[in-house]
Amino acid sequence: MSDKKRRRGDAGASATGRKYRPASRAEELRNQLKSDNEILASLRKICAAAQSSSSTSKTLTLSDLSLSSSCREVSDRDSSSVLQSIERSALDAARSILSGSGFSFDVPSRSSSNQLYVPELDRIVLRDRCSSRPFASLSTVRKATITARVLSLVHAVLLRNIHVTKRDLFYTDVKLFQDQTHSDAVLDDVSCMLGCTRSSLHVVASEKGVVVGRLVFYDDSDRIDCTKMGIGGKAIPPNIDRVGDLESDALFILLVEKDAAFMRLAEDRFYNRFPCIIVTAKGQPDVATRLFLKRMKTELKLPVLALVDSDPYGLKILSVYMCGSKNMSYDSSNLTTPDIKWLGVRPSDLDKYQVPEQCRLPMTDQDVKAGKDLLEEDFVKRNEGWVKELETMVKTRQKAEIQALSSFGFQYLTEVYLPLKIQQQDWL
Amino acid sequence: MSDKKRRRGDAGASATGRKYRPASRAEELRNQLKSDNEILASLRKICAAAQSSSSTSKTLTLSDLSLSSSCREVSDRDSSSVLQSIERSALDAARSILSGSGFSFDVPSRSSSNQLYVPELDRIVLRDRCSSRPFASLSTVRKATITARVLSLVHAVLLRNIHVTKRDLFYTDVKLFQDQTHSDAVLDDVSCMLGCTRSSLHVVASEKGVVVGRLVFYDDSDRIDCTKMGIGGKAIPPNIDRVGDLESDALFILLVEKDAAFMRLAEDRFYNRFPCIIVTAKGQPDVATRLFLKRMKTELKLPVLALVDSDPYGLKILSVYMCGSKNMSYDSSNLTTPDIKWLGVRPSDLDKYQVPEQCRLPMTDQDVKAGKDLLEEDFVKRNEGWVKELETMVKTRQKAEIQALSSFGFQYLTEVYLPLKIQQQDWL
Repeated sequence: MSDKKRRRGDAGASATGRKYRPASRAEELRNQLKSDNEILASLRKICAAAQSSSSTSKTLTLSDLSLSSSCREVSDRDSSSVLQSIERSALDAARSILSGSGFSFDVPSRSSSNQLYVPELDRIVLRDRCSSRPFASLSTVRKATITARVLSLVHAVLLRNIHVTKRDLFYTDVKLFQDQTHSDAVLDDVSCMLGCTRSSLHVVASEKGVVVGRLVFYDDSDRIDCTKMGIGGKAIPPNIDRVGDLESDALFILLVEKDAAFMRLAEDRFYNRFPCIIVTAKGQPDVATRLFLKRMKTELKLPVLALVDSDPYGLKILSVYMCGSKNMSYDSSNLTTPDIKWLGVRPSDLDKYQVPEQCRLPMTDQDVKAGKDLLEEDFVKRNEGWVKELETMVKTRQKAEIQALSSFGFQYLTEVYLPLKIQQQDWL
Repeated sequence: MSDKKRRRGDAGASATGRKYRPASRAEELRNQLKSDNEILASLRKICAAAQSSSSTSKTLTLSDLSLSSSCREVSDRDSSSVLQSIERSALDAARSILSGSGFSFDVPSRSSSNQLYVPELDRIVLRDRCSSRPFASLSTVRKATITARVLSLVHAVLLRNIHVTKRDLFYTDVKLFQDQTHSDAVLDDVSCMLGCTRSSLHVVASEKGVVVGRLVFYDDSDRIDCTKMGIGGKAIPPNIDRVGDLESDALFILLVEKDAAFMRLAEDRFYNRFPCIIVTAKGQPDVATRLFLKRMKTELKLPVLALVDSDPYGLKILSVYMCGSKNMSYDSSNLTTPDIKWLGVRPSDLDKYQVPEQCRLPMTDQDVKAGKDLLEEDFVKRNEGWVKELETMVKTRQKAEIQALSSFGFQYLTEVYLPLKIQQQDWL
C-alpha cells in the first residue's frame, strides 16, 4: 500500500498525472492524430455529400409509400388553420345537433394495435382506425365532454397566441378532468383529430435541453448566437414554433447524452476547433429537444453524431431520438431524426481505447436483458454495425460511461477521443 | 351532465372562458389593480431602501459574532491561492516524512454533531472539531491515500484552468476510489481543509437552472443579455467563477419553483412590465443555481421574492436557498441567500383568491408531518408570518400548485396575481 501511495503522490506532481500511469495506448492514439486541417478537410467532404444527397433525394413520406390513406400522421400547422379546424368541428356538431342526430367525435385510435413500424421511414406511425365518441352514450359522454372542453381551451390559447403546459390545461377545469391523465389523453386525441402536432396546439412540455456551438437562431424574435453562450449554453425553448431562421457553418451536430460531457465540450469550446453544434437533453430526451434536433437536421442538413454511454440505456436514448416513443407515434415524423450515427462510446471502444478494467462496470441481469431486447428491435437490426456492437456488449457483460474516458485525463474526450473518431470517420 | 356540457360549450366561445365561470372574486381582484406606474413607484422605493440598507449595514460574519475561532466556513478563493495551499500541504507532508514522523492530514469533521445553526446568520455552519487522518494507521491509510490523490487531482485541474465534475474526478482513479461516494466525501473534506468552496476547487455540479429578464452578465467572457434570451432563457452556467460583471436595472428577483410558471413569465415577458430577473432551478435547487442567486443578491442588492407551490415541499425548497442543506454546511455562506420573501402561493392565498375547491389538493399524512416538522425549524420560527401560514396549511390540510391559478385563465398569474401581490407588497 505504501508503494501505491508513493505512486499516487508522484502522479500529482505532473499536470494531469497521465505520464506516470499505464496509459500507453492512450498516448499511442494521441500520436495517431493528424493535423486539424486534414481532419476538417475530410469532414467537409462528408458534410457536403450529406447536404447534396439530402437536397436531391427527398425524404420519403407516407404518400410515397402509398400509405397515406391507411396510415395517419400529424403535421405542424399554423394557428389560423388550427383555429379554423376547431371552429369547423364546432359548427359540424351544432348542425348535427340541430338536425336532431346529436353529435359525436371521430377519434383516431392510438392503441398499440393501431401502430405500425414502417421500415422505409424507420419510424412508428398510426394506422387509420378511428372510433366514434358520441355524446349521447353513457360510456362515452364523459370523454366527449372532455374532448369538447379541450377543443375550446385550445381555441382560447391559440386566439391569445400564447403557449401553455399540459398542467395549465388540466387546472382550468379540474372538476371536469378530475385527473391530469384524462386531459392529457384527450389532448393527444385532439392532436390526431385535427391532424396537427401538439406544438401546433400551443401546448408545450417544459424544456431541459441546452445547445451551444456554431448555430444562430431566433427564439421569440431574439437573435441567439450559440457561440456566445458561455459554458452554460442556451436553454432550448419549449415552444418550437417560435424558433426560426436557423443559420450555421457547422459541419456536424454532436448529440450528447449527458450534461457532464456537454460541459467539457462547452468549456473547451470544442466547436471552435471542429465547427459543430453541441446539444444535450441531459438524459432521457424531452419533446422540446427532440423537436429542436429534428429542426436543425432538416433545415441545416447536417450529419448527426451521437455520444452516449456504452450501455443499453444509451442506445435506448438514441432510439427515442430516431424512432420516437410509442406513446406519441402519431407525431413521429416531427419528433424523430432518422439517420443518427453512433459515434461512441461503443462497446468495441472499450478495448480499442483500452479503457481500464476498473472503469468498466459489470452489466446487471436487467441490463443484459435490455441489451437482448434491443437486438430484437427493427431499428437495431437494420444496422449490421449496431448489431455487432450490441452483441459485444451482451457477450462481455461490460458497460461504461462517457466519463470513463477521464481516466486518461480530464480533457482526453475533447483532445484525443473525439478528434480521432472524426479523423477515422469512426461512426456507425 | 348535459347541462354541464352546455355550460362548458359556452365557455369555449369566449377567449379565456373566464367571463362565464364562477370567478367573480378573480374579477374583483383584477379591478383592484392600480396602474403599472403607481405599482412601479412603490416598488422603486422598496428597492432603494433595500439597496441603501445593505450598503450601510454590512452582512454579519462569523468574526462579528466572535465565532471565527470556534466555527469554520469556507470562502471563494482564486486558483493561485488554492494551488499554493495544496503545494504547501504537500511540502508539509514531505518535511514530516523526512523528519521520520510520517504524515497525517487534519480534517475538519462534517458530521451533524459538529454542525451549528447560527440564528444571527440564519444558516448552518461547522464547529471547529478536526480529526487526524494519519497515513501510518490501518484505519485511516485508505482515506489518507484518497485525500492525497484528490489533492493532486485538484491541483492538476487548477493548473490547467479547467472545470470538471465529481464524476470525472472519480473516473480518474476508480481502482483507488472504488465508489464515487468515497471520492465525493473526500472532496468535501478537501474543501474544508483548504478553507475554500468546491467551486474554487473547480469541481462543479451540472446545472439545470435558467434565468431570464433584466440582467446582463458575462459567462466565460461572452456577454449575455437575459432580456434577449427568448422564452427558453439562458442556462445558468455550472462554473460560477467564470460568471462576472453583473448589471441590472431590475427592481427585484423573482425566484420561481417550477418550470411551467417560469415559461408563463418568460413568454409574457413579465420583466418588461415589472423590471425583474426571473430565475428557476426547476424544482430542487442545484448548487449552480444557488450560487448564482447568492451572487445576484449580493452584487445587485435586490429583494428576492419567491413563488413556490403552497405545500411543505415548496417551503423546503425555500429553506435550501435560504439556509442551505446540512450536507454542505461548511459552505453555507456562499450557497445561501438569506432574507428571501415568501410571495406566494401561500396557504392564505387559497381563500383570498378563492382558488376553487377542486384545484386544491388534499395533503397526505406525510405532507402534514412534513409541515409540522417545518414548524419546528428555526428558519420558520423566526418569521411569525410564516408560522401562521404553515399552521393554516397544516390545519386545513390543503395544498395547491402555482398552476392552480390557471383556473382563472392561463395568464391570471402574470396579469393579476403577481401585479396585485406586488402592489399590495404582499410578501412575508
